[in-house]
Amino acid sequence: MALLTGKDYIESLKSFSPEVYMRGEKVDQVWAHPLLRQTIQHIAAGYDFALDPEYRDRSSVRSPLVGEEVPRLQLHIQENLDDVLIKAQLTREVSGRRICAGCMSNMLSVTWALIHDLDAAHGTDYFPRYKEFIKTLQRNGQVIAWGMMDPKGDRSLPPAKQKQPTDLRVIKRRPDGIIVRGAKVHTTFGPAAHQLVVVPCRALGQEDKDYAVSFAIPIDTTGLKMIARPSPGPSHDVRMESPLSSKYMGVEAMTIFDDVFVPEERIFMCGEWDKALNLPFYFASLHRQSKCACSAGHTDLFIGTAALAAEVNGLGRKVTHIRDKITEMMMAAETAFGCSLGAAVGGQKHPSGVFLPDAVIANSGLSFIRSRMGTHLSYLHDIAGGLLSTMPTEADWNHPELKRYIDQALRGNPSYTTEERLRVIYLAQDLGASRLTGTILGFSINAAGSPVTNSIVVRNLYDLEKRIKIAKEIAGLC
Amino acid sequence: MALLTGKDYIESLKSFSPEVYMRGEKVDQVWAHPLLRQTIQHIAAGYDFALDPEYRDRSSVRSPLVGEEVPRLQLHIQENLDDVLIKAQLTREVSGRRICAGCMSNMLSVTWALIHDLDAAHGTDYFPRYKEFIKTLQRNGQVIAWGMMDPKGDRSLPPAKQKQPTDLRVIKRRPDGIIVRGAKVHTTFGPAAHQLVVVPCRALGQEDKDYAVSFAIPIDTTGLKMIARPSPGPSHDVRMESPLSSKYMGVEAMTIFDDVFVPEERIFMCGEWDKALNLPFYFASLHRQSKCACSAGHTDLFIGTAALAAEVNGLGRKVTHIRDKITEMMMAAETAFGCSLGAAVGGQKHPSGVFLPDAVIANSGLSFIRSRMGTHLSYLHDIAGGLLSTMPTEADWNHPELKRYIDQALRGNPSYTTEERLRVIYLAQDLGASRLTGTILGFSINAAGSPVTNSIVVRNLYDLEKRIKIAKEIAGLC
Amino acid sequence: MALLTGKDYIESLKSFSPEVYMRGEKVDQVWAHPLLRQTIQHIAAGYDFALDPEYRDRSSVRSPLVGEEVPRLQLHIQENLDDVLIKAQLTREVSGRRICAGCMSNMLSVTWALIHDLDAAHGTDYFPRYKEFIKTLQRNGQVIAWGMMDPKGDRSLPPAKQKQPTDLRVIKRRPDGIIVRGAKVHTTFGPAAHQLVVVPCRALGQEDKDYAVSFAIPIDTTGLKMIARPSPGPSHDVRMESPLSSKYMGVEAMTIFDDVFVPEERIFMCGEWDKALNLPFYFASLHRQSKCACSAGHTDLFIGTAALAAEVNGLGRKVTHIRDKITEMMMAAETAFGCSLGAAVGGQKHPSGVFLPDAVIANSGLSFIRSRMGTHLSYLHDIAGGLLSTMPTEADWNHPELKRYIDQALRGNPSYTTEERLRVIYLAQDLGASRLTGTILGFSINAAGSPVTNSIVVRNLYDLEKRIKIAKEIAGLC
Amino acid sequence: MALLTGKDYIESLKSFSPEVYMRGEKVDQVWAHPLLRQTIQHIAAGYDFALDPEYRDRSSVRSPLVGEEVPRLQLHIQENLDDVLIKAQLTREVSGRRICAGCMSNMLSVTWALIHDLDAAHGTDYFPRYKEFIKTLQRNGQVIAWGMMDPKGDRSLPPAKQKQPTDLRVIKRRPDGIIVRGAKVHTTFGPAAHQLVVVPCRALGQEDKDYAVSFAIPIDTTGLKMIARPSPGPSHDVRMESPLSSKYMGVEAMTIFDDVFVPEERIFMCGEWDKALNLPFYFASLHRQSKCACSAGHTDLFIGTAALAAEVNGLGRKVTHIRDKITEMMMAAETAFGCSLGAAVGGQKHPSGVFLPDAVIANSGLSFIRSRMGTHLSYLHDIAGGLLSTMPTEADWNHPELKRYIDQALRGNPSYTTEERLRVIYLAQDLGASRLTGTILGFSINAAGSPVTNSIVVRNLYDLEKRIKIAKEIAGLC
Repeated sequence: MALLTGKDYIESLKSFSPEVYMRGEKVDQVWAHPLLRQTIQHIAAGYDFALDPEYRDRSSVRSPLVGEEVPRLQLHIQENLDDVLIKAQLTREVSGRRICAGCMSNMLSVTWALIHDLDAAHGTDYFPRYKEFIKTLQRNGQVIAWGMMDPKGDRSLPPAKQKQPTDLRVIKRRPDGIIVRGAKVHTTFGPAAHQLVVVPCRALGQEDKDYAVSFAIPIDTTGLKMIARPSPGPSHDVRMESPLSSKYMGVEAMTIFDDVFVPEERIFMCGEWDKALNLPFYFASLHRQSKCACSAGHTDLFIGTAALAAEVNGLGRKVTHIRDKITEMMMAAETAFGCSLGAAVGGQKHPSGVFLPDAVIANSGLSFIRSRMGTHLSYLHDIAGGLLSTMPTEADWNHPELKRYIDQALRGNPSYTTEERLRVIYLAQDLGASRLTGTILGFSINAAGSPVTNSIVVRNLYDLEKRIKIAKEIAGLC
Repeated sequence: MALLTGKDYIESLKSFSPEVYMRGEKVDQVWAHPLLRQTIQHIAAGYDFALDPEYRDRSSVRSPLVGEEVPRLQLHIQENLDDVLIKAQLTREVSGRRICAGCMSNMLSVTWALIHDLDAAHGTDYFPRYKEFIKTLQRNGQVIAWGMMDPKGDRSLPPAKQKQPTDLRVIKRRPDGIIVRGAKVHTTFGPAAHQLVVVPCRALGQEDKDYAVSFAIPIDTTGLKMIARPSPGPSHDVRMESPLSSKYMGVEAMTIFDDVFVPEERIFMCGEWDKALNLPFYFASLHRQSKCACSAGHTDLFIGTAALAAEVNGLGRKVTHIRDKITEMMMAAETAFGCSLGAAVGGQKHPSGVFLPDAVIANSGLSFIRSRMGTHLSYLHDIAGGLLSTMPTEADWNHPELKRYIDQALRGNPSYTTEERLRVIYLAQDLGASRLTGTILGFSINAAGSPVTNSIVVRNLYDLEKRIKIAKEIAGLC
Repeated sequence: MALLTGKDYIESLKSFSPEVYMRGEKVDQVWAHPLLRQTIQHIAAGYDFALDPEYRDRSSVRSPLVGEEVPRLQLHIQENLDDVLIKAQLTREVSGRRICAGCMSNMLSVTWALIHDLDAAHGTDYFPRYKEFIKTLQRNGQVIAWGMMDPKGDRSLPPAKQKQPTDLRVIKRRPDGIIVRGAKVHTTFGPAAHQLVVVPCRALGQEDKDYAVSFAIPIDTTGLKMIARPSPGPSHDVRMESPLSSKYMGVEAMTIFDDVFVPEERIFMCGEWDKALNLPFYFASLHRQSKCACSAGHTDLFIGTAALAAEVNGLGRKVTHIRDKITEMMMAAETAFGCSLGAAVGGQKHPSGVFLPDAVIANSGLSFIRSRMGTHLSYLHDIAGGLLSTMPTEADWNHPELKRYIDQALRGNPSYTTEERLRVIYLAQDLGASRLTGTILGFSINAAGSPVTNSIVVRNLYDLEKRIKIAKEIAGLC
Repeated sequence: MALLTGKDYIESLKSFSPEVYMRGEKVDQVWAHPLLRQTIQHIAAGYDFALDPEYRDRSSVRSPLVGEEVPRLQLHIQENLDDVLIKAQLTREVSGRRICAGCMSNMLSVTWALIHDLDAAHGTDYFPRYKEFIKTLQRNGQVIAWGMMDPKGDRSLPPAKQKQPTDLRVIKRRPDGIIVRGAKVHTTFGPAAHQLVVVPCRALGQEDKDYAVSFAIPIDTTGLKMIARPSPGPSHDVRMESPLSSKYMGVEAMTIFDDVFVPEERIFMCGEWDKALNLPFYFASLHRQSKCACSAGHTDLFIGTAALAAEVNGLGRKVTHIRDKITEMMMAAETAFGCSLGAAVGGQKHPSGVFLPDAVIANSGLSFIRSRMGTHLSYLHDIAGGLLSTMPTEADWNHPELKRYIDQALRGNPSYTTEERLRVIYLAQDLGASRLTGTILGFSINAAGSPVTNSIVVRNLYDLEKRIKIAKEIAGLC
């Protein structure tokens, strides 16, 4: 089957009728709901990117599983150094334009490694099923939503010890499948996907074995409900304001499993609690290597916007403090991206065939760029100036008399019209002083695991004993 | 006259009919417009604060000018060390609850010093007029809007050299007054004030003398127009979401002077271009000493919210990385506040009687806390967790069936109900992932002058020559 | 008695014959030993400072205890806001020239408060003894060495639980006094003092009561031994190199109490374990308020040296990155100093009469400036340039033929001779690439308690409960 | 010829008699001078490393030029991705033990690219000569000293405009060669090398063409003089103190060319001013990619020392603030190393065959780690504790009676002897409070070009126009 266009994708949604709620109301037609417009456009843009002539030789790739081209960022299992390097480049490219590259191929790849481990350790036969599932996805060009993070309830207790369980678990085993109950949180773009894949999110003990569950189901499976938070963009039409968030970025959802049946052939893990930690471990490698590139892309977007704002303000990039802050952001972006590439080149192949980057470098680079994001936001305010927070709205500009006043008062660099200047500051505002700001911060700080998890990974994997041994040798203790 | 209550203030607005526009439409009744609700409540809270029994001995003060009590933060001319110390404490207190302490007494005080300078240098008699104006304000309990920042147009050129002038200037001198034209930007809370005071915002040359103008006029003077940007809070009623921005924080406005007449007795500066720089210079001292305390207050609010979020999440403040990030914020708040107090104690009396804090310390402390704000925002996301960006809306919670799911899925620390947890995360969201976030950042980064101005003040006032001389002595060069 | 001159001080040392060791050899005459030269000059400079006409009105002060002038930084009990403000100014002034202001008046003042507490709580009569001791010091113009820090042995155990005790403790109580044994570390300048004062350094339990001991003894008391580490300066004569460390800064010593007798009238604490923590607590307030000013002084010295180095290198302070790094150091120095003043103004009087600054501000400011010191060192290297590490030695310059080559090769800014340039880079080297560098870092990081103690103080004293309460109110939890 | 051992190298020095001065005196026998001991041991260790069985498959490499094994870090021309990746690993490894990996292969490789450019642009035939020179080096196993940095005199003027020239230049052209005069600074390890290679260090104009000169000469060529600064280690024998600097790290020298003759066949550039900038440009790529790994190594050494110090102090690595600071250093080391690898994988082949890493990533990563070095030094003080600055000297420990006192007082973790504890703190002292400290800082901050050059490279090579274009597209400006 040929690669789908964004339009094909939107069409394909009409065959699905997931149970989705927004602002307390049931969404009838996902593909037509105004509050889901940006979500759907975002995913559609991902489909189109795979076909974009400028990128196609990298953004699509022939899958060895089905012998057909698939969109790389969405559906490819990453198998070698080139895969992770190209992915990093494309991720930076896309997130530098639309914040999120929708890199579901990471999720599919780390699950691939997990499930291979299960069969290896337990003699189960999940892996062939999972492979079959991936082939189906690739052949149909379907995208997944990813259910990894459990709500966790009282964090001082493991899932099985909660007074009232919150996390996703198996409540019944039947010959033809299982019944699951509970919730997953942070299901980004969920309502507009075709399939939902779930995996465990943390180490589990023997008593938690019902929580050791992984499977895939269609998004409109009975009992599956999504409560979605509207995307950060405006619901009304705008021409100038919110130029980014009015087009892209999507809903975040909480996914409820109200006694959902999962058929045998879509179950990939069921009770193998001792391997649950492998998933977040692989995720910490492959997805955070992406996240370094993704954050570099965000920083690129801040850089371009800030430089352009300085230009339309008439200050130019030559003003020393502006130039220096922009250079500092450049160096931050390149350091994070350097770590994405460096983690790739320091990586190795997992027995399942998936290529896993060096987790120490990936987590270190990510920790660094995360620690800079707040400062970059401040720089955007600093460089774009106070107007970012105080400027008139687009509606004022559309009012003929007010327009005349605004046009006079807010002209800046004479090489640009006032409208051009407004447009640029609106973009800076969209990034730095809108609901999108919080989404970007959320993406930077908490997506792909919170900052402390970076420290934990590095602390555990860095070879400290070697370094202590060298110190002992030099000091003369051995 | 006794101190006004917030209610009195709202009532008093009914006698004013300023020309205000929001979202392209003329606002009929400022006091009744839903998009101005938070603005008015914010100012009203300032009035009530002066009467609050817990603070009254400091939040109101007997003005030596009129022999009556006035609200300290709004209307008092700061004359001694105690004045600036108490102001700093109250500013931290209020901005730690409502973001902005509305400290217009700073503006009145620095203008006091400027105008005194004018008379001293030029033999003019502006100062008695200004004093009279202040007395009127104090007697009537009126608040001012502050028009300082000019739009500046092409920043590479002074105001008089602009192809098309943008800044506020005198276009006609008449026996009974002057006609002014142009604009001022960043008129915070403007539409809900009683009087507008304008001052110059930068150094001016002889050719710019028409731009050297200061005066006060009632907010509803003919020809005066305000184009206001709605406050960051929601326009619809909420019970849980946006708990801060739904109540407080206000509009930002652009003020247009469409050939406005200013009567002689309200003109405080007209042509004395050589003293224009004094205003921003005094502002850099007195207002930034406040701003240090204000930013300490913002940080306090982040600290309380983050600590409470950790608590309701069930992680508690004992988790090391959370405790350490909160401690880091505490130290940042206290460092900024320490500089506010330290600048006070290092200050001195201006000949006009105004007490001016040490500008080097004030600008250094402000520069420090500004550089931390982005990181504090990140910490709020980090500590409150991903839900801050992905949680269901209040409307979902109000839907009985969804409520049941949410209640199950999002319970955290068993000592709190799910609703309590939601409320706390909504507050974190309001601070860290809403339009208010951008307002807070804007307040932190650009209000009171952009960060580079802090460096410039310190660079110019620090006694570098002394330090070089000591180095020469030690090195043996003299 | 009139204030002593530095020369008087040196003369006074001849009446003391302490048991001091350096590099494994016993020091015969402290006042004449070449490795103690800088130490003695440093202390002597402190005496002269009290008499320096430029500073005398502040650097000496009439002590209310003896009705005579005493050197403020060495011998005054700080009683009011002015005392701590003036001390902060002088400390910055001196440490900006000689690294250490030798501010023993802090130590005497916090001990004053501790001992007052003991009498108040236990009905003992230590305080009159201590007062008498202070009067004697003041009348004789004697300086103290300060023995606070115990070696602590195995830090996981309290002093009484150590397998082999290390810390100073009472081993015998006699009618006329006590016998003490153990050690104190970090006795800065110790061998050149007249008297030694010891105090406990941490919280103690009942079983540790023998470790709860404070007293004063002459430096040459039998059984008291000091093992001193040579000061960082060169032992040979230099004309150009090490311009600072060849003159000032002193030894650090470990003090051994080999069964030392302390007469009754010099015992100030003996067994009152429950009050032991008060001392470090007061120290954390008064001495760290000084330390903020002291670190500001170090930074001032770096600033002057860096600016001068840029000048002699021919780069000048106008080069943007140099100017900006210097400005950043200015702002750091002023922020720390601002906190020193701010802590003062936020302080209060202890029942004993000592004025204790606000510990939260003092510790926050100190934590800040400490975190910058390493960066400031890097800036010094950056601005002074690679020559700082690679330049020829003074001996090369004194070799006529080599001098000719060096003179040709290393001329920089034509307004300065090569020798002048060398002298300046030698100063930068002394600060940034000599043994003094480590001393400065040690002073910055560990003196006055390690950085983590700053966090602990702030965390414990900041009113977090108030901030959580406000967050609860806003969120609607109460 | 087989690879030389360190011993062979030392033997080889006996055939050279360079004119070297230290502390104003001529050095007779370089190989036997006590102040050159560490230098020679350092270089010898580099030879032995190439033969070390643990590393040999990477530390030596078959040179395609001569078909023989050569020590990789000293003599290999880097031709492909593997070369630069392996070099980065080895550099980190060695600099994590001995501070400097002596990576002269970088210098030889970038000169290779420069000289290839000259022939390509000017039709000269320098490249074959240079190739021949490299072959000779490789066949004889000789190491080079590197003369790149000119003293620059008055930095506001180009070399030819100096009142009195300082930089190395051709003063006479003869049929058989040239006569050169002037100086180079920062000739690390210079006196102990066999050959000296010089290159230009900056952009030159046509009038500066005499300064556009590159050549190689034996270290003992007539007229070549080196004025060396003693290495940071102690000159006397130590058993415990200065455990690193007493063995390794070397002199820094200023190299004087007192009318030195260079024969035709060793001239590689002479007058081609228009290509002079290429050398620092290639250097900024290949050598800074190394420097990222080198600084990671320094950080590794700090980590091991700090962790061991915490251990012997009895605090252990479990103490939260220690663990966190060590983790922070780990992440810094890995970020820098990640950028070294990432720069490698982003690199490309120069027409000469040399593989040049991505300069933007290399400079960004280097800028990052440099900005952390001062803080890491502070952490070393913080974690090792105050003893680092105040502990007794080794001589005290060797004094039997003092030893007894020290042994009692300074025991820490009972699992270690006091001597072991002292040894570890001596190592921390060597790194953090000795002359070596300044050398490490100098290496970190100024070696391989000062920090501002990193910013300049990134600013010039980052594709800002692309980012502005994307911002324009999103904002709707095109």
